[in-house]
Amino acid sequence: MSEPLPAPDDAPSALTPAEETARARAAVSAVARELEARGARAGGAAQDVLEAQAMIAEDPTLETEIDDRIARGSTAEWAVHDAFRSFRDTLAAMGGYLGERAADLDDVAQRVLARLRGVPTPGVPDPGHPFVLVARDLAPADTALLDLGQVLAVVTSEGGPTSHTAILAREKSIVAIVGVQDAGALADGQTVIVDAAAGVVTADPSADELERARRRADARRAAASAPLTPGALADDTPVPLLANLGKAEGADEAVALGAEGVGLFRTEFLFLSAAAAPTIAEQRVAYARLLGSFRGKKVVVRVLDAGADKPLAFLNDAHEENPALGLRGLRALRASEDILREQLTALAEADAEVRASGEGADLWVMAPMVSTVEETAYFTAIARDYGIRTAGVMVEVPSSALLADRILTRADFASIGTNDLTQYTMAADRLLGSVASFQDAWHPAVLRLVREVGAAGRALGKPVGICGEAAADPLLAVVLVGLGATSLSMAPTALADVRASLLAHTLDDARRLADAALAADDAASARAAARAASPTKKEAEQ
Amino acid sequence: MSEPLPAPDDAPSALTPAEETARARAAVSAVARELEARGARAGGAAQDVLEAQAMIAEDPTLETEIDDRIARGSTAEWAVHDAFRSFRDTLAAMGGYLGERAADLDDVAQRVLARLRGVPTPGVPDPGHPFVLVARDLAPADTALLDLGQVLAVVTSEGGPTSHTAILAREKSIVAIVGVQDAGALADGQTVIVDAAAGVVTADPSADELERARRRADARRAAASAPLTPGALADDTPVPLLANLGKAEGADEAVALGAEGVGLFRTEFLFLSAAAAPTIAEQRVAYARLLGSFRGKKVVVRVLDAGADKPLAFLNDAHEENPALGLRGLRALRASEDILREQLTALAEADAEVRASGEGADLWVMAPMVSTVEETAYFTAIARDYGIRTAGVMVEVPSSALLADRILTRADFASIGTNDLTQYTMAADRLLGSVASFQDAWHPAVLRLVREVGAAGRALGKPVGICGEAAADPLLAVVLVGLGATSLSMAPTALADVRASLLAHTLDDARRLADAALAADDAASARAAARAASPTKKEAEQ
Repeated sequence: MSEPLPAPDDAPSALTPAEETARARAAVSAVARELEARGARAGGAAQDVLEAQAMIAEDPTLETEIDDRIARGSTAEWAVHDAFRSFRDTLAAMGGYLGERAADLDDVAQRVLARLRGVPTPGVPDPGHPFVLVARDLAPADTALLDLGQVLAVVTSEGGPTSHTAILAREKSIVAIVGVQDAGALADGQTVIVDAAAGVVTADPSADELERARRRADARRAAASAPLTPGALADDTPVPLLANLGKAEGADEAVALGAEGVGLFRTEFLFLSAAAAPTIAEQRVAYARLLGSFRGKKVVVRVLDAGADKPLAFLNDAHEENPALGLRGLRALRASEDILREQLTALAEADAEVRASGEGADLWVMAPMVSTVEETAYFTAIARDYGIRTAGVMVEVPSSALLADRILTRADFASIGTNDLTQYTMAADRLLGSVASFQDAWHPAVLRLVREVGAAGRALGKPVGICGEAAADPLLAVVLVGLGATSLSMAPTALADVRASLLAHTLDDARRLADAALAADDAASARAAARAASPTKKEAEQ
Repeated sequence: MSEPLPAPDDAPSALTPAEETARARAAVSAVARELEARGARAGGAAQDVLEAQAMIAEDPTLETEIDDRIARGSTAEWAVHDAFRSFRDTLAAMGGYLGERAADLDDVAQRVLARLRGVPTPGVPDPGHPFVLVARDLAPADTALLDLGQVLAVVTSEGGPTSHTAILAREKSIVAIVGVQDAGALADGQTVIVDAAAGVVTADPSADELERARRRADARRAAASAPLTPGALADDTPVPLLANLGKAEGADEAVALGAEGVGLFRTEFLFLSAAAAPTIAEQRVAYARLLGSFRGKKVVVRVLDAGADKPLAFLNDAHEENPALGLRGLRALRASEDILREQLTALAEADAEVRASGEGADLWVMAPMVSTVEETAYFTAIARDYGIRTAGVMVEVPSSALLADRILTRADFASIGTNDLTQYTMAADRLLGSVASFQDAWHPAVLRLVREVGAAGRALGKPVGICGEAAADPLLAVVLVGLGATSLSMAPTALADVRASLLAHTLDDARRLADAALAADDAASARAAARAASPTKKEAEQ
């Protein structure tokens, strides 16, 4: 990635304030339109991110700040630079979701400055041949439109597994490793192997390493074109493969990639863009569309998970010191129970509506951020009030995993959210770069908690799904099944690799891999131990 | 507690700015001196808190803010009110330790305003007879000087177990329950029973309930005057009772109360008031004083635990989104390894210095916020570099408890910090009122983690201490021993009650209580189950 533009200096303007204001407005507006256009071309989650950036660029507060500086005699360049900087600091101080967006502002400011100066926007270089892109971090606008024919892989030195770069890369099936601390030491023209499954970048590989990497890449391509059979192990143990979805619009693509249903439908999209909660009618339309796309299949809907990095003004207190440990998920919904009741009403109505016109979907509903037996009893009771037949809980807080044997007496199923479970088990913020090395679901402590839930599920005959990022790691997926997971849900683009990996292991294999990983000291050793215990080791690595 | 003073209005001043400035300065200065004097009378942790408040009152930024407002024609009253409010908002926005201090500012502002108006400072009422004090929250200045002859107990509707009120009350052995949500419903003149051990407030008790409460109070008084025997169960199983200390000055009082050593010596006090790390020589003096007070006894020193609610400018990044999940404890020390090495140097030198003049103390050193086996190996290796013979880790992150069997192969001992362990296990900020109900070490999920550590310690022959608030709860202390804890460390004022409770239970009793608590669904049921399983139930409750 090219360097950022040099900052302008605060020299007095030679133009009139009206002229400078016009220049600033034109540049901001052009950048906002460009971001929207990039979003429309990219679609999916990238579109949401880019449209949000465009809105921020044209924020009225920011416009006033720019105008004020120009009125005091500044150039448009300085006014934009200084106003964005000030707005960025304000956002950063607010913390939460808005604080996270502060970094996005830098990218927008660079685009506006570049336009004012008539120079190209800093962005992804184009060396004219396929290449591995190494960067500090990528702007969403750049990640969204990466040329998949040219960019072989992405390596960044910043960001964690849940950064925008990581999420967008996963959605576009780009091979990517984020948070590689010594990525800056890589030089232009060096040959590197990027093994995203192992999380390893190998610089200047030997001929032997290169050959093995080529075989892994071939196997990956083969998996992508394998038949879309239902998820199962080599011994025919079924392991339904489900999709994580954030909008009903993703349903067709998920089915096309072989999803046997939805393991996690996030309902935040209906709420995040709204100033108040959407009406029951608005929600019903969205849920009916989703359920109608999965007639005869399972659809697990998670009720609103607001708070932490996704605060809602009408639900969350913005002044929590540690929002990830605050009134989020079900805790926040209980404090605003009308929102929960409206959501369950809309789900029950949508279910009835779809059933009225043919075979219905198998609707399961679950609550996020459940940490006690009492919360489990509260949620399942209220869900049954609305005729929901299958009500369960997310297991993403250590206490829920530790008490799974008690919680699963009250819930119909559990779904493990490995991202948050890892964050809390390791006490390491999953969005914070300086502790990114702790955020690895391969950590044996996390695997031991998964084992607790799996054992409780088996003992009580209750399903245990996985809907965190871990399920999308082909080798880890096998380990999770060995620990007792009965279904796996992931980004649809990950389904092919996981399907192929499951088919290469029996349930005995899976349990052996799990035991090997559980006995390890750390995440890297657990991964290595599982790999060494896998029958696919020979084919893939030699 | 009386109501806050009415806010002044922004009427123009009839005096000159110079006169108003003089009034404001005199009032601020008088309040600062009053806070210092109260601190000196109170001593201990209260003194630190009150001296910090006095410093904040005379902060130069605040003085400038007051002067500016007076220069614009305000009265001293309005200027003080408005400047404190603005400063409070700034602090709150900064978050972290400073953010926590925002609430303290309100108390200081009230005191300055009262002085300007010549009215009494709002504070603790004096009904002329012993009473139970019910309040929203208590200012540190009030808690510190509560009249122990008059105040029978304190009940607040706000604050968690680690709020200033709770900590100061514990230090002064005041019966207190904080965060009682319906405390506001209690009325003047009502009879209440405050059972701090059970965490229950009973309004309008029956004659029977009153009689049982009187017996409990009698038993508590008897414990306080019992002989200072070493900690042990009824069957003579030794359970050393140690003190949590924050300054060497507390050593004499701890020994007088029967502490058999120090289970947690916090070293933050040397650092929190300094702009840079203290020198090796400064540290050596403090450590030698501590070790000299405990010749022939065990002293467990925790290396610097900065970050989260105790950030240090020279060590921590102030801009973490969730500082409790950030670069804190050993993570921060590794990033500034010179500070860790200097601290270990000073500890080793102090140890040698004390040994040179007679019997030494048995120095153990431990690292805070350890979450992996690798961190354990790192810390014990570096401690051995400096000749430290016994090096261990705090277990306060769920992953460390879950991997205790691996971690204790590398560490000489483990010490469980139940406050943070509970916070992370429940994913509930221990300083946040809205999730205070989750912060209870009686929760079976927390007890299950303690069991993991206890079992690993027993299997590997390594000591497992408890140094969180849980050890100070007489019944929970027995449960913790039943789970495998081999020593208990607490505020010295809690030693008598815990000593008496241990003497009333055998190891078999303790294990039976532990099993009963482990099988419960929640903290309240665990406590009730343990109590029902205790042989002391009859005496205490019937």
